[in-house]
Amino acid sequence: MKTISLSILIFLTVFRAYSQQAAPAPTPELYSAQTLTDLKSIQQAALQSDYAYKQVAYLANNIGPRLSGSPQAARAVEYVAAEMRKLGLEVRLEKIMVPHWVRGEERGELTQFEGMAPGTVQKIVLAALGGSVATPKEGITAEIVVVGSFAELAQLGKEKLNGRIVLFNNRFNREMAVSGQWGAAYGQAVAYRFAGAGAAAPFGALAALVRSAGSSENRLAHTGAMGYPDGVTKIPTAAVSNEDADLIEYLAKQGPVKIHLTLTPQTLPDTESYNVIGDLKGSEKPDEVVIVSGHLDSWDLGRGAIDDGSGVAAAMQTANILKQLNLRPKRTVRVIAWMNEENGGRGNTAYAADEAANMAKHFAAIEMDLGAGHPLGLVFAGKDEALPFFNPITNALLSQGAFQVLTQASVGSDTAPLTAKGVPSFAPLSDARFYFDYHHTAADTIDKVDPKALAENASVLAVLSYALANLQQPLPR
Amino acid sequence: MKTISLSILIFLTVFRAYSQQAAPAPTPELYSAQTLTDLKSIQQAALQSDYAYKQVAYLANNIGPRLSGSPQAARAVEYVAAEMRKLGLEVRLEKIMVPHWVRGEERGELTQFEGMAPGTVQKIVLAALGGSVATPKEGITAEIVVVGSFAELAQLGKEKLNGRIVLFNNRFNREMAVSGQWGAAYGQAVAYRFAGAGAAAPFGALAALVRSAGSSENRLAHTGAMGYPDGVTKIPTAAVSNEDADLIEYLAKQGPVKIHLTLTPQTLPDTESYNVIGDLKGSEKPDEVVIVSGHLDSWDLGRGAIDDGSGVAAAMQTANILKQLNLRPKRTVRVIAWMNEENGGRGNTAYAADEAANMAKHFAAIEMDLGAGHPLGLVFAGKDEALPFFNPITNALLSQGAFQVLTQASVGSDTAPLTAKGVPSFAPLSDARFYFDYHHTAADTIDKVDPKALAENASVLAVLSYALANLQQPLPR
Repeated sequence: MKTISLSILIFLTVFRAYSQQAAPAPTPELYSAQTLTDLKSIQQAALQSDYAYKQVAYLANNIGPRLSGSPQAARAVEYVAAEMRKLGLEVRLEKIMVPHWVRGEERGELTQFEGMAPGTVQKIVLAALGGSVATPKEGITAEIVVVGSFAELAQLGKEKLNGRIVLFNNRFNREMAVSGQWGAAYGQAVAYRFAGAGAAAPFGALAALVRSAGSSENRLAHTGAMGYPDGVTKIPTAAVSNEDADLIEYLAKQGPVKIHLTLTPQTLPDTESYNVIGDLKGSEKPDEVVIVSGHLDSWDLGRGAIDDGSGVAAAMQTANILKQLNLRPKRTVRVIAWMNEENGGRGNTAYAADEAANMAKHFAAIEMDLGAGHPLGLVFAGKDEALPFFNPITNALLSQGAFQVLTQASVGSDTAPLTAKGVPSFAPLSDARFYFDYHHTAADTIDKVDPKALAENASVLAVLSYALANLQQPLPR
Repeated sequence: MKTISLSILIFLTVFRAYSQQAAPAPTPELYSAQTLTDLKSIQQAALQSDYAYKQVAYLANNIGPRLSGSPQAARAVEYVAAEMRKLGLEVRLEKIMVPHWVRGEERGELTQFEGMAPGTVQKIVLAALGGSVATPKEGITAEIVVVGSFAELAQLGKEKLNGRIVLFNNRFNREMAVSGQWGAAYGQAVAYRFAGAGAAAPFGALAALVRSAGSSENRLAHTGAMGYPDGVTKIPTAAVSNEDADLIEYLAKQGPVKIHLTLTPQTLPDTESYNVIGDLKGSEKPDEVVIVSGHLDSWDLGRGAIDDGSGVAAAMQTANILKQLNLRPKRTVRVIAWMNEENGGRGNTAYAADEAANMAKHFAAIEMDLGAGHPLGLVFAGKDEALPFFNPITNALLSQGAFQVLTQASVGSDTAPLTAKGVPSFAPLSDARFYFDYHHTAADTIDKVDPKALAENASVLAVLSYALANLQQPLPR
């Protein structure tokens, strides 16, 4: 259940807009005059550069989807390590063992419903959830029972569920997500995606379907991680598109609905993989570290452009801009391309364990993992006392409209273990209004990345990283 | 080449907005005072009724996709005939033989491109075009040559194309479509979809891919009819999603791109099917006919909700409203659910042939086949001298915002043969800004139909049908 608890934790939203207008004037002693000048140069250089866009295009197109354990994930590790070396970073690969789940065939067809003519083909668009076991090769056929909640599932009980397939029909709350509470909206939906199969199996259900945990209105199924609780029969599980969940809901009100469901994924042995870590050593406090990061693995249906090639590319851009401007930070800026954010979190778990003794030296951690929409400012997880330290940073970003600071309990999956240990943590506050239309679907492709908005996000990361690396005081923590 | 020439003909746009404001006052002698009163009753009843929505929901959900020759198409014929009988119409089935093409497996995967790691899976989302022959079961693997036009194809010639797979990379012009010139925009794209394979085969190409003839940005392939010219080798052909065409274009600029392409469609023997024709006999001139229609067949990827379950449902609503209000038209109102609009036009061809001697008795023909967006008025194909006859009609529709009259050379595929014989022809002027985002894709599902906008379209059809049936003069033709 780790992934889901992290996901919920990440997004537990304590919203408090902290606008630049209300803030005191920049405090000279926080950042040197030279640093403040450099921040403007960094911003301008990042806004004008297409480096990040070219990197995410390469990741999405020349490498492709990068699910943990896949050949593409391995190629991405090699590629990013080589690119970081080109930037003059000290690169190391942090070894981890990752799950290696492979999607197979996936098919759903209704075989009984009100009005159905013999020979009818009424397909259900669906995608196996990451970690799901397979059906028998020939598939299974059973009646679908539509439920709205875990409570309703329990109410129906074994009598109504035994030998049937459950559809968890909870609709992603797009309005909530668009309003800024994306974490709460996603968390509500992911609860069923992650734990639906485990909840249905004890009642004798043969499989669990879930309405896609996203807002696509384009017949796209949303994949994502699921997990089986210990001791429960593992039943196959898949997400159906919103349109197909609508159809099943409509038909089930009229009479019995049966589906023939075929899923043939495999879980292969764990595979060796790596976090890619590149250090630009600090000139004054090289042992103090500011992490700037995204995750390198991606789901297999799309090409991992918005989730999260963009984050990796924008993080690499920080090092690229500092090299281009010949700026050396006082603290070490550490670019990390995390592995296995999507289905296990093995990368961030390993890093937090390996660095457990060094937490105090982790000055700050930044992760970008909510797409590459126009950034409105920063998300911060840490002590409120630190907020005034960010005014010069948001001042430097004011001209691009990125001046807000939103506080949350956590800002990203991979930084969450660090946040939990007290490391001040940050993300760009990217406009996520359309993120969940594409996220974890086949439509996560490079055209969803707006080059200008990506450059704006990269600018936020670069300015924030350099400012934190050169901050002349410790951050309250 | 019939389908494409019709498609272009249909939409050849001679735009002339003819707004209500500039029109003379209604001419009393055109319509009786009672008819004018009745038009308002019809409008209000249609706007308040959910009959059309329930019908399209049944067609899309309880029947499903209805490609000619399929069990669902046969079921739809039975269903609509029965529903028309419930409305008290004199129903007959006009027999036709239709193509019976069946989609099989369809898979595309790149096997070579710049930067590709061994074992990479980089899928190409594609859909076989209707009428395409199959590849061998094991698929074919060849390099892709990207071309922008038929002229470029010819320039490359056999030397560059022999043994290769052509990608016709012409992008659907969304701006043109949104501006109202949907027909021209669609025609440009369909030219390659319909004729690409036939054009590429003589140069030794093994298959033809085409960029989807639509504006989807959600990794959806657009299917549709294609045809082989006589005497040319039949090569398999499929549409790729816009995102995948983008990918191939991007990669082909960097080096050779190879694809493994598997398509297993079959063309089965022609199948007996029917136009469903239901007459509400006129009280004064029963031999004069006003057709109100949509087409019953649909592509197989989606569920035929916007294309064109909506048109059939709205046409049926005309009869339903007249029955509900106990109104009998002076001329016969003929509801037609056409068969085989999508891949052959056999239904409209047969009707025009069967009724060849009765063209003069066809007072008018209406078809709705451009989705069910909010209608702004009428599309008219006929003599400009007829335009003043429509003022009382658009007056009756003014309160719902449907007061414009746009003249075009043709208004719909199935009415085109009638239009060509001089039958004044009409369509609702539906807002088609989003139509080509879903049209012919898997996302043509019931949620794309807005119940209110569908009722507005049904109101346009019902008011227009009754007005024409009761017009106290002949229409100029």
